[in-house]
Amino acid sequence: MKLEKLVGNRFRERPSDCIVDSHALMVRGGYMKGMANGIFSSYMPLKRVTRKIEQIIREEMDAIDGQEVQFPVVMPASIWQESGRYESIGKEMVRFNDRSGSPLVLGMTHEEAAVHLVRDYGESYVKYPFMVYQIQTKFRDEARPRAGLIRVREFTMKDAYSFHTSQEDLEAYYDKCHKAYERIYARTGLPEVISVASDSGMMGGNISHEFMLLSPIGEDSIAICSECDYRANMEAAECILDNKREDVSEELTLVHTLNIHTIEDVCAFLNCDEKTSCKAVVYQRNSDDHYIVLFIRGDLEVNETKLTNYLGCEIHPAVITEECGLNAGYIGPVNLKGDFTILYDRSLENLNNLSCGANICEYHYTGLDMRRDIADAEYHDFAKIQEGGICPHCGKPAITVSRGIEVGNIFQLGTKYTKSMNMTFVDSNGDTQYPIMGCYGIGVGRLAASICEAHHDDFGPIWPLAVAPWQVHLCAVRADNADVKEYADKLYEDLQNKGVEVIYDDRTVSAGVMFSDADLIGVPFRVIVSPRNMKQNIVEIASRDKSFSANASMNTAVDEVLKLLAKAE
Amino acid sequence: MKLEKLVGNRFRERPSDCIVDSHALMVRGGYMKGMANGIFSSYMPLKRVTRKIEQIIREEMDAIDGQEVQFPVVMPASIWQESGRYESIGKEMVRFNDRSGSPLVLGMTHEEAAVHLVRDYGESYVKYPFMVYQIQTKFRDEARPRAGLIRVREFTMKDAYSFHTSQEDLEAYYDKCHKAYERIYARTGLPEVISVASDSGMMGGNISHEFMLLSPIGEDSIAICSECDYRANMEAAECILDNKREDVSEELTLVHTLNIHTIEDVCAFLNCDEKTSCKAVVYQRNSDDHYIVLFIRGDLEVNETKLTNYLGCEIHPAVITEECGLNAGYIGPVNLKGDFTILYDRSLENLNNLSCGANICEYHYTGLDMRRDIADAEYHDFAKIQEGGICPHCGKPAITVSRGIEVGNIFQLGTKYTKSMNMTFVDSNGDTQYPIMGCYGIGVGRLAASICEAHHDDFGPIWPLAVAPWQVHLCAVRADNADVKEYADKLYEDLQNKGVEVIYDDRTVSAGVMFSDADLIGVPFRVIVSPRNMKQNIVEIASRDKSFSANASMNTAVDEVLKLLAKAE
Repeated sequence: MKLEKLVGNRFRERPSDCIVDSHALMVRGGYMKGMANGIFSSYMPLKRVTRKIEQIIREEMDAIDGQEVQFPVVMPASIWQESGRYESIGKEMVRFNDRSGSPLVLGMTHEEAAVHLVRDYGESYVKYPFMVYQIQTKFRDEARPRAGLIRVREFTMKDAYSFHTSQEDLEAYYDKCHKAYERIYARTGLPEVISVASDSGMMGGNISHEFMLLSPIGEDSIAICSECDYRANMEAAECILDNKREDVSEELTLVHTLNIHTIEDVCAFLNCDEKTSCKAVVYQRNSDDHYIVLFIRGDLEVNETKLTNYLGCEIHPAVITEECGLNAGYIGPVNLKGDFTILYDRSLENLNNLSCGANICEYHYTGLDMRRDIADAEYHDFAKIQEGGICPHCGKPAITVSRGIEVGNIFQLGTKYTKSMNMTFVDSNGDTQYPIMGCYGIGVGRLAASICEAHHDDFGPIWPLAVAPWQVHLCAVRADNADVKEYADKLYEDLQNKGVEVIYDDRTVSAGVMFSDADLIGVPFRVIVSPRNMKQNIVEIASRDKSFSANASMNTAVDEVLKLLAKAE
Repeated sequence: MKLEKLVGNRFRERPSDCIVDSHALMVRGGYMKGMANGIFSSYMPLKRVTRKIEQIIREEMDAIDGQEVQFPVVMPASIWQESGRYESIGKEMVRFNDRSGSPLVLGMTHEEAAVHLVRDYGESYVKYPFMVYQIQTKFRDEARPRAGLIRVREFTMKDAYSFHTSQEDLEAYYDKCHKAYERIYARTGLPEVISVASDSGMMGGNISHEFMLLSPIGEDSIAICSECDYRANMEAAECILDNKREDVSEELTLVHTLNIHTIEDVCAFLNCDEKTSCKAVVYQRNSDDHYIVLFIRGDLEVNETKLTNYLGCEIHPAVITEECGLNAGYIGPVNLKGDFTILYDRSLENLNNLSCGANICEYHYTGLDMRRDIADAEYHDFAKIQEGGICPHCGKPAITVSRGIEVGNIFQLGTKYTKSMNMTFVDSNGDTQYPIMGCYGIGVGRLAASICEAHHDDFGPIWPLAVAPWQVHLCAVRADNADVKEYADKLYEDLQNKGVEVIYDDRTVSAGVMFSDADLIGVPFRVIVSPRNMKQNIVEIASRDKSFSANASMNTAVDEVLKLLAKAE
């Protein structure tokens, strides 16, 4: 490919709407162009990167006996009604009617489609296990697309679905797929990706993992134990607490706290630590605005994923009205009356000598004893794990919290979809059972952006060889010099004849423009032909990451490049 | 791939809803499964066929300097409003709003997206020409999906868009692309595909061609001259007529024609040929139900595409009400009064001694002389070309009409999109101009189905090697025989190690089941290992199309297969 003909503009200025480097570099380098919020077109360089990523994913899916299939982008609502998700999924799923009035949806995931495709086939246990996957466009109407290809509305995803006759068989396959994912990240240049236990969310099932690239621009928070191998998404990390009760319980005492509302102000006024206070956090159910009052230790935050999972419904932070029966700023567990759902976090279990709201305007209590004063409380885990918190695995106070980009996820789904969509098989005893499913996703564009996040400098991406748009960037400096042009043209031909993917810059532009364009295109090896080099009978070969630079004889340049590529593969 | 693990059911019975063979065989063979009207999932065998087709297309597009890009499936309405097609395209384009209320559409073609992608890039004439293409999912809400993959609502399409600084340059590239298309059809096993002149429809522009596989199940009618190389879609074929005027004009005479309405009845009653009658065909504009009365020679039919193109608006057959001022069954050109658009087909030009309606209930005229009685008539070509009609190219009465499946199309678009979307370039004189576009489409699934239509027997598809899901179908007959199993397993390994794509049937089923499944999978070469063959130290090698069958020594079977494949490629 001649760079001169490559469609797409390259430029120096960082666009003001790009908050992350991968987005800025991909816009500056002519990789992508935004068409609407979270909707992009790809130019050739990005398309080449994503096709290489797709091929690596395909090879690894085939290696674990995956069968490539294709599901529709547009699906009838009916199969989503079968699974129940037509109702349970919110606005992120696009719904519309076709010309005859039949309701359709845009696929944002394909569990229903997978069950639809295989439910006739999987009638007998002898057909199991099997896995089908596709690499296909999906659309999710995200409320807040951000960060270029990191969070978009339209995206290409590899999604795989496996079917099993037993939990053991699913688990064995799940491990196999976990290893395939590790190979995918290693091959695409991200061996540092870690897997973390995660929350299954709308997918159903219990065990699931996310694959995370640790990065300050990540949207996820990950709890990592520095003492053992525990790693979990904050949403899923169990919060372990060492609740210490004081020997003597004070009396419950009403305290006048005029114009004091926040937990910080209350604790400052009472001269106590937030850890010795009982904080109320109030939510409302989305469906009917019913109030949910959650009590938690004053220094902790609510993990809304845990709360949502416990409640089994969507919620939002409460709007506390005058009529609702709650005294904003003064809510406490003692004598709280009204039609509320009242919940207690485990952080309060057994504690005494706490401060809390008194459910009376401008009054708090001190001396709250959970055992004595709220004898019937049940405690559940609703708290966010904290930096320095106790590891749920090894028990040491060694949790650190890092940001990460989710570059893949795998789920053990159980029978949620096969049951609801009535897919059964006859087992070896002649009994009818529901198959057990697993599902496994990787977003291709987000992976490309993550590779760019992990591998770039100020001047452009530094693509790993396996996913680079081209393998060699050939620069003919002073292409207006006939000798340079002739030799460089020949080198371009010869390299291509050897199967090397070459982007060839023979424009009559300055070396500076040439090299800054080459930096933006980020091809791993650069070969420079110039009058000065030719005088010495050499070409320069340099790596994009600047770790390597050498001169090769003009006669042996092709062989030297082939050697370098072979070594780098 | 082991056939035992291939997901998808195969069966004998032709499904009652399959009207064409390719659909029936693809359902019977486990290639596809319908999910909704015109919406299908693909199993692995079809996915492998379509991926091979896509790769052939990709190679040919790259060979004519195409740059693979990707446009979104979901697009903002805004870019379709820019081009004006948001209004002009009907219900086949899906429109919906996102969660914030912004209008979006599903892409059914991507001219707007292509201009959006490249309009910043193509600012100077030195950047031209260039071509970008994608292979991507599209959705078109067809009123009548039919015939399996022949006419669907969701489909994968290769669509390409070229940009030029002159009509000459477009034409040169258009020819190049025409040749690339010929190579694509030849390589995918359809060298018999012909190109025909076509109507540009909603695409704009003037010159366009469709690539047609002649087939009785085709939806298009094609006019082919048996004397020269003229070939055109009926929609676009000019109707040439040799209008013979009689020497003496009779007088216009009112005739009572009680209870006679149709042109056949009128001519029978008047004892004249339909060719000597002037027929009225009435339409209404979709937008406001305005009446359009078209007069045409009684034996001819109206080509509604020509009529629509002439009018520049959508129309439908008229509902003639009592109040509308038209006398159904008695409409004629003499004294026709009212707010109608009145049009005359060229077939009537100069004719005399015609019969026609008198615009009076139960009365017709004879002796109509178009020159004398309708002196101000303007004539245009609105008629369908007919079998035996005059060739517009060589002038001989040698037109035949055949059915065809459209497997591709190419258009010279002109500046319709660049003008409306304000894409300009500065030419070598410093003047601002609009680039001239071409576009080039191939539906991948329809091409797969067309290959199957052209290459199948009663038992299954006969895939050409280049697009077959696998290259070799290895049958181990009596796999319960340890020797058979051991040798066949080894052969499976050895062939795969040589890079051959093998589907391996080692099930313990009868040879009959094995071979009928192999017929349905349609792999070009079959290798049969059996106890009987092994006794003779041979394997059977046979082609799916039954043109070839031979025995190979067990020792040299791999080499024999490799030779056959090399020869067939």
